Amino acid sequence: MHYTLAELAQLTATQLVGAGDCQLSELASLRNATKSSVSFVSSTTALVELQTTSAGAIVVVPELIYEIKNGLLSEDPYKTYAELSVLFDIRGIPFAGEIHPSAVIAKTAILAANVSVGPNAVIGEDAIVGMGSIIGPNVTIYPETRIGVDCLIGGNSVIGSDGFGFAKSADGWIKIRQLGGVLIGNNVEIGACCSIDRGALDDTIIEDGVKLDNQVHIAHGCRVGARTAMAGCVALAGSTVIGADVTVGGMTGFTGHLSVCDKVHIGANALVTQSISVPGTYMGGAGGVMKATDWRRNAVWFRQLDSLARRLKLLEKRLPEIG
Amino acid sequence: MHYTLAELAQLTATQLVGAGDCQLSELASLRNATKSSVSFVSSTTALVELQTTSAGAIVVVPELIYEIKNGLLSEDPYKTYAELSVLFDIRGIPFAGEIHPSAVIAKTAILAANVSVGPNAVIGEDAIVGMGSIIGPNVTIYPETRIGVDCLIGGNSVIGSDGFGFAKSADGWIKIRQLGGVLIGNNVEIGACCSIDRGALDDTIIEDGVKLDNQVHIAHGCRVGARTAMAGCVALAGSTVIGADVTVGGMTGFTGHLSVCDKVHIGANALVTQSISVPGTYMGGAGGVMKATDWRRNAVWFRQLDSLARRLKLLEKRLPEIG
Amino acid sequence: MHYTLAELAQLTATQLVGAGDCQLSELASLRNATKSSVSFVSSTTALVELQTTSAGAIVVVPELIYEIKNGLLSEDPYKTYAELSVLFDIRGIPFAGEIHPSAVIAKTAILAANVSVGPNAVIGEDAIVGMGSIIGPNVTIYPETRIGVDCLIGGNSVIGSDGFGFAKSADGWIKIRQLGGVLIGNNVEIGACCSIDRGALDDTIIEDGVKLDNQVHIAHGCRVGARTAMAGCVALAGSTVIGADVTVGGMTGFTGHLSVCDKVHIGANALVTQSISVPGTYMGGAGGVMKATDWRRNAVWFRQLDSLARRLKLLEKRLPEIG
Repeated sequence: MHYTLAELAQLTATQLVGAGDCQLSELASLRNATKSSVSFVSSTTALVELQTTSAGAIVVVPELIYEIKNGLLSEDPYKTYAELSVLFDIRGIPFAGEIHPSAVIAKTAILAANVSVGPNAVIGEDAIVGMGSIIGPNVTIYPETRIGVDCLIGGNSVIGSDGFGFAKSADGWIKIRQLGGVLIGNNVEIGACCSIDRGALDDTIIEDGVKLDNQVHIAHGCRVGARTAMAGCVALAGSTVIGADVTVGGMTGFTGHLSVCDKVHIGANALVTQSISVPGTYMGGAGGVMKATDWRRNAVWFRQLDSLARRLKLLEKRLPEIG
Repeated sequence: MHYTLAELAQLTATQLVGAGDCQLSELASLRNATKSSVSFVSSTTALVELQTTSAGAIVVVPELIYEIKNGLLSEDPYKTYAELSVLFDIRGIPFAGEIHPSAVIAKTAILAANVSVGPNAVIGEDAIVGMGSIIGPNVTIYPETRIGVDCLIGGNSVIGSDGFGFAKSADGWIKIRQLGGVLIGNNVEIGACCSIDRGALDDTIIEDGVKLDNQVHIAHGCRVGARTAMAGCVALAGSTVIGADVTVGGMTGFTGHLSVCDKVHIGANALVTQSISVPGTYMGGAGGVMKATDWRRNAVWFRQLDSLARRLKLLEKRLPEIG
Repeated sequence: MHYTLAELAQLTATQLVGAGDCQLSELASLRNATKSSVSFVSSTTALVELQTTSAGAIVVVPELIYEIKNGLLSEDPYKTYAELSVLFDIRGIPFAGEIHPSAVIAKTAILAANVSVGPNAVIGEDAIVGMGSIIGPNVTIYPETRIGVDCLIGGNSVIGSDGFGFAKSADGWIKIRQLGGVLIGNNVEIGACCSIDRGALDDTIIEDGVKLDNQVHIAHGCRVGARTAMAGCVALAGSTVIGADVTVGGMTGFTGHLSVCDKVHIGANALVTQSISVPGTYMGGAGGVMKATDWRRNAVWFRQLDSLARRLKLLEKRLPEIG
């Protein structure tokens, strides 16, 4: 697959800089680029690599026009990179384009036109998969799950498994049958090894344009708003309601039965224990690592913070008497 | 599936309130209930929704008898809900009722009567699955794993994989063959995408009535006591011994080679680093999220707690001199 | 399978103590050992069990020669245990030895001699699997993934799935096609339910001798150095570079675009947010659990650490005036 730089300018609606007949055959990082690569600068940290790259052409913001010889000017180089990634993708989305004969699809499941199902995937009874959606290999879609248009489900993910619902009794736990389903909107991407449980009564809902990384766990009765993105290993306990345009850092958890409003951004490795009703950026956790000797010295006081605070208060009380 | 309210009272051994001939065709949450729904109130937060629900009948504690028109009185409405969930489950447990022809079952594996095996599940040599147990789709049961009666294993879980055991040598890690197995008791439920490793020498043991949510990781040689329940993404390092009737919140970890006694309850997102020998409720972690600006201001001091404590002590020493 | 103690001494290059004709038929923990078991002492905590074990023979360090009647002297009993585990492994690595007919292997995939592929595993187009490697059941190997010699991939793991890459636009997220691959070296072991994403542009690389426990998530463009070992549920965000001979405790996360040098050891349940350039041991997180009442009293001050520090500073300023 070859493009001239002029062709790429036209295909991505960007402004050409330099030699329009420059031949480009791949998209590459600045570090690994060669003369036949097009690359891009999307952050200030990339500016250093810009000086040493061998890239034949580079996508930059207009302000950097004098830093490149051949390239493309884009108001959003990262977005242009996304567009270029499609142009240079010679293979296409893995496992797209067929319903593999090894997949087990229930007779009552409904697959719209142009649906792909990977090898050894399982689709249960009365499940519905919308047009253009791609179900990865070894994925399990439980009965009645409804998946919209143009979705992509990564390998070995499970959609519609039983929620974790039990009532206590003298003899142990009594299983609560999970009577709700899972409803997934359009243009949703779910990574590998994710699990999304069916609702206990009401459906678990993933709205349009949601993007989930790998190993994400969504419990029963949760609702994830449109275009919300969650990084790897995020976990939502039951009945968590997340708004639209939210981003969640990796490994962050939600304790359930709480709601987060639109446009909230939450850092990595935190625990959300209460509802959030004001948009903005939130963080939690104890922060980054330190040398083990330092950590041990500091963390031990975390167990005595209340005592420290009381001692401080006592000193504050005594000082006025003295002064 | 239709029941009269009188029938439901009889089937759940609860007391009828109001019109016994009221026709009910589904179980629903208070919020989404209609005239033909039976719903329930199991917490004080549901009392608000009780005022506005359209539910045809409601299960409540006897004290709330005057708050409902038609319904059922139960000492434990949540338990009654569990019983109703079975009555209104028209589909039954997903993938129950057959050994799917796509499942790969070793000839030496022993499946008792009434075992179900989902599509594309794999059951290894000499594995044993007890009566009535249901193995979900794409599940992997490694050789020699023994599973009791009436268990339910969620989609894509793995039971009996090799434990993480290596000895250091000058040339890197030497694999320790994992010679133990996994022994799972009766009436155990394991969620989707869980992994339970076989023992290095002694078996990994999951006792009767244990309930594991999705993405739970149990390392080699662990023992989980009867009726213990663990929420999503909990992880046990090797040789952890957990007692009976323990509950563990989501994302909590155990560092291994420690034991937790019966009737311990541990919060979410914590790390258990030492044995617990006294029943009760335990918590850990840094607590919930806050605004990022606040978090940065506060968390930086966590790295200097020891220094803060020393400064406080110094002040305390000087004050007596002054006073 | 039976060995005399003299045979075991020869096979493991250790020194015989006591009766060389002692018959041994299994390897067992000190606690569960019988007369026909060989066991081992590899830590001081095992010394207590040494007094009460029924083991027929015991591997110990030379210093403990007078504590045993029959046994083997080894400078590294744990390494000797690893060697014994192979001798007493009557079954061998599970699912080794065949390419199961239910596995779906693309015609363009290349499998070297002596490769094993478990039931219902999927190997995509142009994937390469090196000599002697074992692909577990229900594993998904995406197209173009390259796996070295003598690797072991646990059940239901996914290698080569799409990285989590999206560009923001006014209409939501635009998918960035993931054009890189995954390159796995020789002698790598990957546990069950792991996910390793393909690179966005550059390959994700797992070097020789790396050992990953279950449920580990490696994002796109990461590089994990030789012989590095990661415990369960560790997660690496995109473009994390980890050196050689690093160990990482369970549930620890890396926020991406950072690098960790060789010979770093990181504790469990921590978050690495910055590069580490000095070998050593690092820890993070808030430490272990405590009684819930204590935790609530202490953790609340974590949210007010900055305020505590300011109050302390104020006292320090006032004291000189007084004194």
